[in-house]
Order: sequence, then structure tokens, then C-alpha cells
Amino acid sequence: MTIEFYDLAGQDGRNFSPYCWRTRMALAHKGLDFEHRGTAFTAIAAAGGTAHRTVPIIVDAGKMISDSSRIADYLEAQYPDRPSLFGGEAGHALCKFVHSWTNAVVHPGVARSVVHDIYDHVRDEDRDYFRTSREKVFGQPLAAVQAGREDRLEAFRADLYPLRLTVRAQAFLGGERANYADYIVFGAFQWARSISDFRILADDDPILAWFRRCGELFDGLGRQAPGYY
Amino acid sequence: MTIEFYDLAGQDGRNFSPYCWRTRMALAHKGLDFEHRGTAFTAIAAAGGTAHRTVPIIVDAGKMISDSSRIADYLEAQYPDRPSLFGGEAGHALCKFVHSWTNAVVHPGVARSVVHDIYDHVRDEDRDYFRTSREKVFGQPLAAVQAGREDRLEAFRADLYPLRLTVRAQAFLGGERANYADYIVFGAFQWARSISDFRILADDDPILAWFRRCGELFDGLGRQAPGYY
Repeated sequence: MTIEFYDLAGQDGRNFSPYCWRTRMALAHKGLDFEHRGTAFTAIAAAGGTAHRTVPIIVDAGKMISDSSRIADYLEAQYPDRPSLFGGEAGHALCKFVHSWTNAVVHPGVARSVVHDIYDHVRDEDRDYFRTSREKVFGQPLAAVQAGREDRLEAFRADLYPLRLTVRAQAFLGGERANYADYIVFGAFQWARSISDFRILADDDPILAWFRRCGELFDGLGRQAPGYY
Repeated sequence: MTIEFYDLAGQDGRNFSPYCWRTRMALAHKGLDFEHRGTAFTAIAAAGGTAHRTVPIIVDAGKMISDSSRIADYLEAQYPDRPSLFGGEAGHALCKFVHSWTNAVVHPGVARSVVHDIYDHVRDEDRDYFRTSREKVFGQPLAAVQAGREDRLEAFRADLYPLRLTVRAQAFLGGERANYADYIVFGAFQWARSISDFRILADDDPILAWFRRCGELFDGLGRQAPGYY
């Protein structure tokens, strides 16, 4: 039975959620067919009910699962004969460090760089919700959060140095082949690419070359998604 | 045949090199006996010749290997029947990210916090070499590099957040059991503990609890080494 995949959707079919990209790449890695259900922020409740309040959500054989980490663990356990997302227990454990680093370093830097651009790309029915909820998080208007991003760029790029060192020396975080660690970080940059022309990564950054390699995976799944570059 | 292990040695049997600690823990992880050869900075050339200019160095069955990463790869390949350092290809690849993060974030923060304390603990014959070489790197006197460490501490602790998140949720970076990723990061904090009473980690920091867990491994190998806490 085909898996249902509830993904965040903005204007023009832009799927920008970094966590949903983790799941989308994981489904492709496992070679699983899925029906893509683009969902507005304000339509998640109708899809997931009170038990699943955020996307990504998948429904597999009648079972609903949310949270990208839980979904990855579910897919790995449920489809052990498909290519492994983690490459064993040690790989799974180390993905937690990549997850923590991405959430602590990459996501905040991306968010402060493009949050107003996200606002410009959410569906009309999501605009009030998005602005109100995010301005509460940041404590200031979205335009003010994003302002000065050019001045912060050098420091943010420096914070990405551990990733740069790694993907300069090997094709993927997972080694010669990409694994879930790559999808965790890829999601963050795909998020930015989907809704903003602001170039977080310089043209000659080895991270951009790695991002392109990830975008080519699974017949160009990432590259073919709507985006600015 | 017992492996020879050339380790940096300061005063009072203090072995403070973070890279040598990676190797020492790796040897213990593999359950390999070794003869410990405490070596002054200025005695490395006599041990390693022109081909091996830094410690750690090991000599196994007449073969000399230097560089902690190369040594770990050698041990993993040479002793495949012993407990794995990496847990497979994905674990090995992800250790490179942990290595890059540790070298880019943890080592500079530790070095700026304790570099003058290192100077105070190197052997007499190493003092001129250490000061001259490190002042060239930092471009200022060692006391000036270290000055203000209290003021930098909050920011440095914040930089450690990805590690904190991870070891708060699981016992080791490697998961339920420690692996080489843990030894990479452990070496950095053991370096500081060996030669300084300056507390980089707060008493209630989950990273300190993880550091203690690592110190208990292999019959307390890390804990029993001379140190300030």
C-alpha cells in the first residue's frame, strides 16, 4: 500500500519545511512510493488531529506517525530489507549529534536569514498564523529579524566550518553514499533555497557542492523541487 | 607482541595531548596491551624520525604509524575481531564530522582557556619550544591568550550545545556504548583536566556527566590519570 506523506506546502507548490525534507529524502532512500499531500500550516490539524500537530506526518498501512526522527526510526525498523538510513547502531547514534548540531547551529542561522521570505511564500490562509506565531518566538517583526542578514553572513558561514571540512574530504556525511545524516542537514539548506534568493552559501563553498550532490539523489528529487537556485 | 605507544608527557607523568588520548582510548577499546612511552615535545624527533613528527605514534609488529586518525583506521583494519571503534562505514564517516566539529569548536576554546596552564606543566626541556611555537600561532604572549577566559566561558559553553543535547539524551555519542567519536571529544576535555583547575564545564552540565562516564571506561583509565578534577 502506498504511504501517504503530509508535507508543508506554500505558494506555487513550494515545499519548504526542513523536517519534511528529511522525511521526503528518507522515503526516497528507502525506495518507498508515497502520495504527496501538500498541506497548509492551518490545515495540519485536519490531517493529524490532536495527536499529530506538526508535519511531516506519514500514514503507512493505517498507522499515522509524525515527527521526522520518529518517522525515520519507523521506516528503518519497518523496512529493514531496504537500504539502511543509518548504517547500524553507531550511525544512528551519531545522527543524533548531527541532528543536534543542525538544530542548534544551522536552523537558527537559516531562520534569521530568510524568515520574512518564508512569510512571503506561505499560502494566503497561513499568513496571519505564520506571522503571529513566529513574531512571538523572535520577539520582533519578521522584517526586523531578517534585517542585517548580509552583515551576519560571514559569521554564519564560519559556524558551518565543521560541515565544510567534512564534505570537502568525503562525498557525503554518510561517506561515499548519503545517509540520514545528510538528509538532516540538506533539509535546512533546501528550506532556504525553496523560498529565498538570498545566497547563504558562496559559489565556491564545498557545502554548496555537497548540497548539489544531495539534490541530484533519487533522480534529482531535491534539485527539481521549486527553488531559487 | 606488545604495541609501543609514544604519548606526550609533561611534568609529574601528566599526559595531556588530546590526540594521544584519542589513541590511548582506542587501544583500550580494542583491548590491546601497550607499553607506554612518555615523550617530551623535544624528544619526539628521536622517537619518530623525519617521517613521524608528532605524537601519538604507535609501533606494532615493527610498523610505525603516527596521526591519531591513521592509527584508529589501522587498529580497526588490523584487529577486526576486537570491538569496533566505528561500528561500520557510516559510523566511520560520521566520526569525521565529530572530528571536524571538535577541532573547529572544542579545541580552540580549550586552548584559549588553558594554554598558559599547559606551559606551566610541560617539562623543563620543552618550555622554550612550547612558548615559542604557540606564541607564533596565537600572535601574542600565552598569558595574554588565556586572559579573559572567565569572560569567554559563557559563549564557549553555548558553543558546546550540540554535544550537550546529544549526551543528555543518550549515554555516549556512540549510543549505549562509547566508540571512537566519544574518544575524539573526550581527549579535548581530558587535555584541559590534565593541566588546569579551570572548570570549563559547570558541575551540572550533562557534558561533565558524560566526561565522567568516559573516564570510568576501561577500569577508570581516564579518571585515574593525573588531573585537577
